[in-house]
Amino acid sequence: MEKKSFTRAILALMAFMLTSVSLLAQEALFGNSALISPEIHPDNTVTFRLVAPKARVVQVTGDFLPTQKVTTEQGTFDRPGVATLTENEQGVWEYTTPEPLKSELYSYSFLVDGIRMMDPNNVYMNRDVMTVTNIFIIKGGQGDLYSVNDVPHGTVAKRWYDSPTLGKQRRLTVYTPAGYEEGRQKYPVLYLLHGMGGDEEAWSALGRTAQIMDNLIAQGKAEPMIVVMTNGNVDQEAAPGESQEGLLKPVMRLPHMMDGTFEQSFPDVISFVEKNYRVIKKKSGRAIAGLSMGGFHSLHISKLYPDKFDYVGLFSSAIGVTDEKVSPVYEDMEGKLAIQFKDAPKLYWIGIGKTDFLYQANVEYRDLLQSKGYPFEYYESEGGHIWRNWRVYLTELAPKLFK
Amino acid sequence: MEKKSFTRAILALMAFMLTSVSLLAQEALFGNSALISPEIHPDNTVTFRLVAPKARVVQVTGDFLPTQKVTTEQGTFDRPGVATLTENEQGVWEYTTPEPLKSELYSYSFLVDGIRMMDPNNVYMNRDVMTVTNIFIIKGGQGDLYSVNDVPHGTVAKRWYDSPTLGKQRRLTVYTPAGYEEGRQKYPVLYLLHGMGGDEEAWSALGRTAQIMDNLIAQGKAEPMIVVMTNGNVDQEAAPGESQEGLLKPVMRLPHMMDGTFEQSFPDVISFVEKNYRVIKKKSGRAIAGLSMGGFHSLHISKLYPDKFDYVGLFSSAIGVTDEKVSPVYEDMEGKLAIQFKDAPKLYWIGIGKTDFLYQANVEYRDLLQSKGYPFEYYESEGGHIWRNWRVYLTELAPKLFK
Repeated sequence: MEKKSFTRAILALMAFMLTSVSLLAQEALFGNSALISPEIHPDNTVTFRLVAPKARVVQVTGDFLPTQKVTTEQGTFDRPGVATLTENEQGVWEYTTPEPLKSELYSYSFLVDGIRMMDPNNVYMNRDVMTVTNIFIIKGGQGDLYSVNDVPHGTVAKRWYDSPTLGKQRRLTVYTPAGYEEGRQKYPVLYLLHGMGGDEEAWSALGRTAQIMDNLIAQGKAEPMIVVMTNGNVDQEAAPGESQEGLLKPVMRLPHMMDGTFEQSFPDVISFVEKNYRVIKKKSGRAIAGLSMGGFHSLHISKLYPDKFDYVGLFSSAIGVTDEKVSPVYEDMEGKLAIQFKDAPKLYWIGIGKTDFLYQANVEYRDLLQSKGYPFEYYESEGGHIWRNWRVYLTELAPKLFK
Repeated sequence: MEKKSFTRAILALMAFMLTSVSLLAQEALFGNSALISPEIHPDNTVTFRLVAPKARVVQVTGDFLPTQKVTTEQGTFDRPGVATLTENEQGVWEYTTPEPLKSELYSYSFLVDGIRMMDPNNVYMNRDVMTVTNIFIIKGGQGDLYSVNDVPHGTVAKRWYDSPTLGKQRRLTVYTPAGYEEGRQKYPVLYLLHGMGGDEEAWSALGRTAQIMDNLIAQGKAEPMIVVMTNGNVDQEAAPGESQEGLLKPVMRLPHMMDGTFEQSFPDVISFVEKNYRVIKKKSGRAIAGLSMGGFHSLHISKLYPDKFDYVGLFSSAIGVTDEKVSPVYEDMEGKLAIQFKDAPKLYWIGIGKTDFLYQANVEYRDLLQSKGYPFEYYESEGGHIWRNWRVYLTELAPKLFK
């Protein structure tokens, strides 16, 4: 067999691979592949770059920019701001934030002559329903909790469970903490539910659940726990692209998302988890929390099965949208709450942002709880109905569970 | 508590979510969110669409188009073709393939005035090293094996294992077949290795391993088996974005990828798997296969530990790039092969594409095996050094394992 020089052969192989993966001569010519974007500077200012010599206007939009107020029929909301990049003589557009950014996980997109596009130099992205954006993390604070650090890492598994109530196999995401597989200990379980349009991928991707739990557990702040992330849309078997429906464009579909069906099928999830994992099978070993529609689900599931959950977390929860006629699940809310709070959960935690469009509904719900003397904890943040807040709420809630 | 109309409140919530996730008024104005792209027609022609009223030229490039020959210093290679979209009066650009596409998984990108961008109407993407492309599947043939079908589904877990040889915790992907968790049966294990620039995500994402295995097992074509997908770059703890290095731009890094270190650390993987999973701990229960650099690794690992693997698969394997001086692993290749083939593996499988730049090296390697009388199976496909072939090779090899 012919022997080539190791180095020469390897370099040829690498050159080929680079050529092969970049797909296009244009890209190499434009030099995009050599650019760094976003570049996080030592002072935490950030530079965004894009090679676009033929573009007329290149902008960047994202949640690192000051929000803009937008008024629609549904009210006034915060929208991410937009900044314009400037072009140099080589056709490289650039924008540097005027101020250092606070430690956080941020998302952004470019707008090239008005068309939203991904940053071709950043392979890190999140999908939120039908929109994909790039992400980056500023370390040195809250962002450290969303980063992979030198700590023991749990396992993240995508599994299928049988839901006899819904008559189908469904997919979920399970985080088991470091040491789970090797040990014999039984663990408590946090059931963590997504919002409307989300799925069983949302909390592990957008919510950085595995990173948050790895870090909080390693710091001794949270108890080692299993986190089960379900799909709250009972029309779906699994997240878009992961079911028999194929690679269809994700859409918001309403009919069966808040009609009591998911709540009624939830015992299927608990029974799967308790059969398949070494878990503490009692109220003190179970927590349920969710964001937006998932908060709504957590509220109703926890009162529908009042002996099941000692910890309840409502994040920017959809409250006050129920009609008793829709499902027996929503009938007699106050009567069911009375039963739930007779042997009250150890923690009933409500978190919401000051500018959330659900703020007032949450005020009214807190008033109800207070008027009945039901104990709860309340956490109010800046900002609105956004993933940044839900990650923060998870980092606030998790240390309070199972203690 | 104030009661709102259920339907009105839900619609307001949905409208808000839609507004919130789309990030930008522009996108709604341009109407991109209402478009379907790609649209797969009943006859398997495909239409690509992009709203870009200000663009001068919009093209699509991808492996569904006839390849173009490109000559570089390293030789002549196939490159995906490029087709130009035409613009209608609303600024919607469109291209329909002139012919139906064969059943396959395809990848593509748009080129807008020369800038490569994702299709904003397609959230399905694959990352290959540092390049992200959109994907779609044409069903009715090979593409069915890459699709999620109405069959029992295995679990895909991202786990960390300890590698004492490398002195670090490392990440891997494990596919366990449907029924694994419920049963008591012991399973055989296929170790499946990626190519240069890949990582422990490559086979499950680009390679569609879980879908392929779910389908082949359900059809009774493959034995139920565990598939372990490692990270063959010993400089990395984990795939880009999944390690302490943070969200750094992925780069090709050479120093320790083909210097014998990964091969020498491979027993750490086997020992982790055999300690943590119900597996058949003997030669007849182990297979190792890989693509390109992973084929190189499979070749060397299987002869370094000649009593370990009864099934070896070399996909478009990097062969003939070793220098004996680099590592004792590569010393005395023929002597080590003689030992391996003394008690020959039940199957030594070589697959390569006719236009692969490693074709000649594989011819020479087959000549060597033949000259020594070592048995092997050979599979030759069209095309070159591409994921399409590696998915096909997995569908060819898996049914031959553990029988």
